[in-house]
Formats: sequence, C-alpha cells, structure tokens
Amino acid sequence: MASKVLIVYAHQSAGSFSAAAKDAAVEVLKSQGCSVEVSDLYAMKFKATATAEDITGEVKNAEHFCYAEETKVAWEEGRLCADITEEQRKVKEADLIVFQFPMYWFSVPAILKGWFDRVLTQGFAYTQEKRYSQGIFEKKKAMLSFTTGSMETEFSPNGINGDMNVTLWPLQNGILHYCGFQVLAPQIFWAPALAPPKCRTYMLEGWRTRLQDVLKEKPLSFTPMCCFDSEKGFQLKPEAIEKYANKEFGLTVGIHIGRPLPPNSQMKAGV
Amino acid sequence: MASKVLIVYAHQSAGSFSAAAKDAAVEVLKSQGCSVEVSDLYAMKFKATATAEDITGEVKNAEHFCYAEETKVAWEEGRLCADITEEQRKVKEADLIVFQFPMYWFSVPAILKGWFDRVLTQGFAYTQEKRYSQGIFEKKKAMLSFTTGSMETEFSPNGINGDMNVTLWPLQNGILHYCGFQVLAPQIFWAPALAPPKCRTYMLEGWRTRLQDVLKEKPLSFTPMCCFDSEKGFQLKPEAIEKYANKEFGLTVGIHIGRPLPPNSQMKAGV
Repeated sequence: MASKVLIVYAHQSAGSFSAAAKDAAVEVLKSQGCSVEVSDLYAMKFKATATAEDITGEVKNAEHFCYAEETKVAWEEGRLCADITEEQRKVKEADLIVFQFPMYWFSVPAILKGWFDRVLTQGFAYTQEKRYSQGIFEKKKAMLSFTTGSMETEFSPNGINGDMNVTLWPLQNGILHYCGFQVLAPQIFWAPALAPPKCRTYMLEGWRTRLQDVLKEKPLSFTPMCCFDSEKGFQLKPEAIEKYANKEFGLTVGIHIGRPLPPNSQMKAGV
Repeated sequence: MASKVLIVYAHQSAGSFSAAAKDAAVEVLKSQGCSVEVSDLYAMKFKATATAEDITGEVKNAEHFCYAEETKVAWEEGRLCADITEEQRKVKEADLIVFQFPMYWFSVPAILKGWFDRVLTQGFAYTQEKRYSQGIFEKKKAMLSFTTGSMETEFSPNGINGDMNVTLWPLQNGILHYCGFQVLAPQIFWAPALAPPKCRTYMLEGWRTRLQDVLKEKPLSFTPMCCFDSEKGFQLKPEAIEKYANKEFGLTVGIHIGRPLPPNSQMKAGV
C-alpha cells in the first residue's frame, strides 16, 4: 500500500527557502507514489494557543482548568474542536510526518509549538503507559526539517550556540519519541539566508536525493522503555547501567549518566 | 531606586498552581519594595503567531517575507504593532523578568513561545554583535519558574525524560542568555498536580522564601563571548580549550567539547 506523508509546514512566505524545501518534498514523495498532505499552518491561520475553546461543550473543571486533563476527557468523548480533530485525522493516517520550519529561538516557531500542544493530546498521542518505545505512534516515522539562522560551526560542541544535538533533544525525544514516533535524522539547512543561490540549490538537491529513500531510513536510537524502572521513578534499572558500564559515552544526549554525550546521536542514525 | 519586576505569566486558570506561584511572587516582591508588572498572556489573548500583521504599514519584501528581517526594520522605524511595543516597554523597564508557566512538551507553552518570537526582535533584544555575555540585556536578570507534569526522578541524568539541564539549555542559553540576561537558577515545581495539598503549600513557601532575596542571587555561569573566535565561526579559541584541558567537565551543557556535562549547571548557580 502506498505510504502516506503529512508535511506540517510553518513559514509565512511562499517565496522562502522553507517553502522550496516543502515543495520539493511534495514533488519527490508524490513521484515515489506516496500520497502527501500538507498542513500549511500560517495559511490555515492555525490557532497556536491552548485554551478552553478547544473543547466543545462544558469543561469539567472551569475553576481549576488543566489543559492536559480537559483535552484528555474531550478526546475520549469526541468533544475536541474541529481544527484539532482534523489534524489528528491527518496524523492517524500518516506513515511519516515531516515538520518543515525555520528554527526560531533554538526551537520551533510558536505556531508549530501550538500544533504540538493542541494536536498531541493525552489519550490520542500518549498515555502514562504508552510512551517512548512503547508509544502510540510506534509504527509511524517523524522528522524535523529546518533552516537555521546561524552557521553550522556555531552549533558544534565547541561553538557558541552549543551542540545542536542538545538543542534537538527536547524536540526529538521530548515530543516525537515521547509519542512513540521513530525519529528520522533531522534535515538541517544551515543558514540558507547567508548562502549564495548556488549553494541553496545544492542544499535542495541533497534534500531531493535523500527523500527518494527516506521511508527506508533507519531511525535515531533511543533507550527502550524496558530499561527503566517504573517502580523507581522511571530511572535506569541497575542492570541497564551495568550493561553500559564500560562504554565511553552516555546512552543518549539526555540520559548521559554523567558520561560524555554520544556524538551526533540526535543528528545521525546508527551512532 | 526600587527594582522593577515583570512577570510573564502563561496559565489559563486563576485556580492553578502556576497562578498561586505568580500571586506569591507579586505579593512577596511588592512587600520587598519592588514595583511589579504582570503580563497575563492568556487573559490578554496574546497573539502567539509571528505574522506580517505585526508590522504597521508596508513590509519591505512581501514576496520573500522574513520575519526576523522585517521586524528588525520595523523596530528601527517604530513600526511594530502596539502589543509588541507595549511588551518591549515592559522589558526595557524591568530589572528582573520571571517567566511563570507550566512546562508543555519539554518547553514553554506556545503562547509564551510566541511572546519570545514576537517581543525579542532583532535590534531591540539582540544584534549579531550584541549577544550572550555582551548582550543587550546584560544588566537585567531573568528566571524560568515552572511546573512539570513528570516527577523529578524522570528528569535526572538517568531518568527516562533525560537530564533537565539538557532540556533547559535551549531556553536558558538560546533565548535568555542569548539576549544577555543574567539567568537566575530556575524555580522548578516538580509535578504539583501529583502532590498532596500540604506538599504544594510547602513548595510555595520555599518559593516565597527564595523571592525575598532573589535580586541578590548570583546567576548561572555561561562561557563569555571573548572565548569564541568570531573569525572562525564563533568556535572556542584554542587558548580557551587549553585552559579547560585538565577539567573533568565540559564548559556548559551545550559547549561540552566532548566531555561529561557539568552537573546541574543549568539548575544551580556557582557550579
């Protein structure tokens, strides 16, 4: 069966490099036989802010409104608002989701953060039991594809912005892998605004080439859920720590157990 | 002269723990003689999304709209929209900014990300030359104060969510320190929703106690700008690397030069 791809796209301008990257993805993936859907967040005027209006009908506890709890119940009862429900339909059908955006302040633009906050509701995208390697979307793949304002050197482990792997951890582990997604290596377009046109063309060509086999790529490595002890605050089990006792590096960027970070573990598969 | 404090507050409900933390801050800081201003983002229906509407009058390049470039020019020409200008006035006057929010997806809620994206415009908050330890707000302090959904153990260096210091890096280094702010240790309220009422009271008491001397606190340590070579892509100068050659840890979470991360460097001052 043909694969379905959802591109969640967050740039204001059809003339941007991000738009060109999105258009290239649509074209190449369609030519590979995929069906491709695009959520163009700015064009949709996607609501970024998590409010009680996201729930149809009464909220359970207006005085002590808790968004995560309220949307969990609303999802169970089919009372989430239409724009969230529609995005959830797209997520449910997708085999791969590509997030295409310009990096704003070491993260995604607010409109895309709003998509994460509002669409990935409890119950639909995760539960306390179903998360990480046992997550709800474990059969799906996801990938960040983004432009930076800074040069690659500035995001190296001795660059002024610090190691890009660190900056990627909250997004790739904390959002994508948390929901179970197999996280494909990010596609990083380093400072296209500073690059000459020829270089931008070259970057887009590399992207088009990658996309031809993107669905066969191996995902990044994360530590499986079974290594953590749910009885002890989800910390690594002693046997898991022991297994890594002679390793040079920590397990991942975040779960580093006081060791050096495994180089490029949030940037390349198989490291 | 009395200190001015701005609290940027991002919770939907006046009955929340976040609201109680914000109210405690207002009360204690006022009793210390500070003047306190609150930006209650949900109550203000603060616009989260960065769009061309943030600029009054013509944009420079509608076809290739670039938010950072357009808002830089608009700021220089006094053509940013009223809500951004008003938040910039508050920032300009503040000696300390406290960001009070519930952590959503390992980061700030979209409405607060929108505040960062829209208020901290180029020229006003940073330039290519004036950033980090030479940043525009070097005389100001800033602090994250937030609740988590997960327990503290889950955010330890061998916990399933990974080291909280890693998750804080993009926010504290990438946004606050980038603009020059002296970053005070974060105030983390671990999973108040899971805690009994007595424990929540205890957490708030600790916060009130801290606030009494908060303006005298030493900030977190970051690597000064002078250690980086602007001619070589802002990487650490050889003499800076050499200076740290015998140290056990990297300089910071992000600038770790392949060493173990300095423990708690994003959580405590003086480490």
